[in-house]
Amino acid sequence: MARALQSPLAVSLGDPAGIGPEVIAKCWDNREAFGLPAFVAIGDPRSVAAIWDGPIEVVENPRQADSAFDYGLPLIPMNTPSADVPGHPSVGGAHTSLDSLELAVGLARSGSASAVVTGPVAKEQLYAIGFQHPGQTEFVAERCGISPGNVVMMLAGPTLRTVPVTTHIPVSLVSSHLSSALIESRGRAALRGLQRNFGIAEPRLAVSGLNPHAGEGGQLGREEMEIIAPAIAALSAEGWRVTGPHPADTMFHTRARANYDAALCMYHDQALIPIKALHFEDAVNVTLGLPIVRTAPDHGTAFDIAGQDRADPRPMAAAIRMAADNAALRAETA
Amino acid sequence: MARALQSPLAVSLGDPAGIGPEVIAKCWDNREAFGLPAFVAIGDPRSVAAIWDGPIEVVENPRQADSAFDYGLPLIPMNTPSADVPGHPSVGGAHTSLDSLELAVGLARSGSASAVVTGPVAKEQLYAIGFQHPGQTEFVAERCGISPGNVVMMLAGPTLRTVPVTTHIPVSLVSSHLSSALIESRGRAALRGLQRNFGIAEPRLAVSGLNPHAGEGGQLGREEMEIIAPAIAALSAEGWRVTGPHPADTMFHTRARANYDAALCMYHDQALIPIKALHFEDAVNVTLGLPIVRTAPDHGTAFDIAGQDRADPRPMAAAIRMAADNAALRAETA
Repeated sequence: MARALQSPLAVSLGDPAGIGPEVIAKCWDNREAFGLPAFVAIGDPRSVAAIWDGPIEVVENPRQADSAFDYGLPLIPMNTPSADVPGHPSVGGAHTSLDSLELAVGLARSGSASAVVTGPVAKEQLYAIGFQHPGQTEFVAERCGISPGNVVMMLAGPTLRTVPVTTHIPVSLVSSHLSSALIESRGRAALRGLQRNFGIAEPRLAVSGLNPHAGEGGQLGREEMEIIAPAIAALSAEGWRVTGPHPADTMFHTRARANYDAALCMYHDQALIPIKALHFEDAVNVTLGLPIVRTAPDHGTAFDIAGQDRADPRPMAAAIRMAADNAALRAETA
Repeated sequence: MARALQSPLAVSLGDPAGIGPEVIAKCWDNREAFGLPAFVAIGDPRSVAAIWDGPIEVVENPRQADSAFDYGLPLIPMNTPSADVPGHPSVGGAHTSLDSLELAVGLARSGSASAVVTGPVAKEQLYAIGFQHPGQTEFVAERCGISPGNVVMMLAGPTLRTVPVTTHIPVSLVSSHLSSALIESRGRAALRGLQRNFGIAEPRLAVSGLNPHAGEGGQLGREEMEIIAPAIAALSAEGWRVTGPHPADTMFHTRARANYDAALCMYHDQALIPIKALHFEDAVNVTLGLPIVRTAPDHGTAFDIAGQDRADPRPMAAAIRMAADNAALRAETA
């Protein structure tokens, strides 16, 4: 069971035509087995009713959700022009998902909700309605008054946490995007996040190399010597416990993982391959560097299986559980 | 227990100052628990005696090893100028390791040995004595009369096999090293190897993308569309079962792995991160495309722990077992 929280979690349903409504409803169904605290869903109630015949408790605020949680899925409704069919995203649905996200963040900022968990959105439709951010993370950062450059994405599973330094760029551009300043900034945010969200007083960060065998002393690339090692030295000089650059291929086996609390990786797949190989069902996307706690399941809208009762609720359950744990830890140390 | 073999396996000790002699001796110690067939070690007997007090049966050829195997570790001795101290590699030791490798390959080529398993060598010392190849794999290929470009390295564990298209080059150069022709050639060698060495009549190959989300339709890189997809189409047109390009981060979880027999990966860490995260203790390096079977444990000389009785023999045991299985399968289908 998760730690005690002051108020429920705010969970945005994400795109109404995606699997968000389904997995969130299934989380309420399995709230005891999954060990979930009270949460309130935010979105179009029709998107839940379309794929689930359980009880929905329409509420106005998270406080009401607390007492309603035993009787049905508490849900703050969003007005939408028309109901979406599962698997068929629309511009109207994008508006709904954005409004839901905005309210969830606002509730967490005001303290009415303990944390935000975000369901998956449809980026293409969001862009069509003028959404300017690469993803929900940057939107949440902006609403919290934080520069997107100062927040980092952590993928967290039961035995591994990884943080990518660069994310959605081609592999051929990774080297030119890396700088010691960027690695230091991401590393610092990761280390502070381990303290604030995970309660690790003296966190240990393992930094990967970019190249095979971490460059093998310059034979297989010089980024380790010229960019990564100086960043590690700078972080160490600030008193942080940081090691590396480590050959990425030997960082992720059981014994290696025991030596650090998070791995700082140079690019998307270096961070995502090991976390998904080891923790596909329960890896959580945690945004560090925010004044609020925000988590998300590490999957998309999955329009291809939406409305078919095939979506696995475990990643969403892991995201809700981690949000609750992180929020409780923050409240204890605040 | 491994399948029945016509003749023992030839196992080169590798560098006498590394952990090769130790893990091979420990394999003989645990031959029943590990399910190992008869094998003959090749190298300096003093390098074994320095770290192991079990019985060594000096023999002249693999045939003698068969009957000696029950009484001690059968070993074909290599003359060396002086004994090496564990942990302290020398030029003399490099000569010994190269001579052992050469004899092991010769014995397999002639049919006296069923297959070759190679212990780890010290590249720096090999280069010092004029060794011109990037590694043992290319040396073995040349001795077998095969162009090194036509052999491929496969990393094989109990639930995953991966083949890297490019290997020891900086990440920033991967894109420029990729070509449809190279991917096709590596893919074909991998598919034939799955047939010949693993007895899979209609092997399934999953090909990864290079970039995050396999390029996301060109948004995050164009190599998938311009280089990888055409190679997949060409292999498919030859009748092979090939899929992709797949996003690399979602290829390696349990359910995904059930859809293919091997994953063809674009670069070193893309292939090595998942295999070592999942199978650190029993991943085997198999060379495909040779007239003989050759395997190796996927670790190095580990000079830092040599001579301390700390080396884990399980990777070497897995390499010996896989060599025996592959050789038996080849003999059945020959």
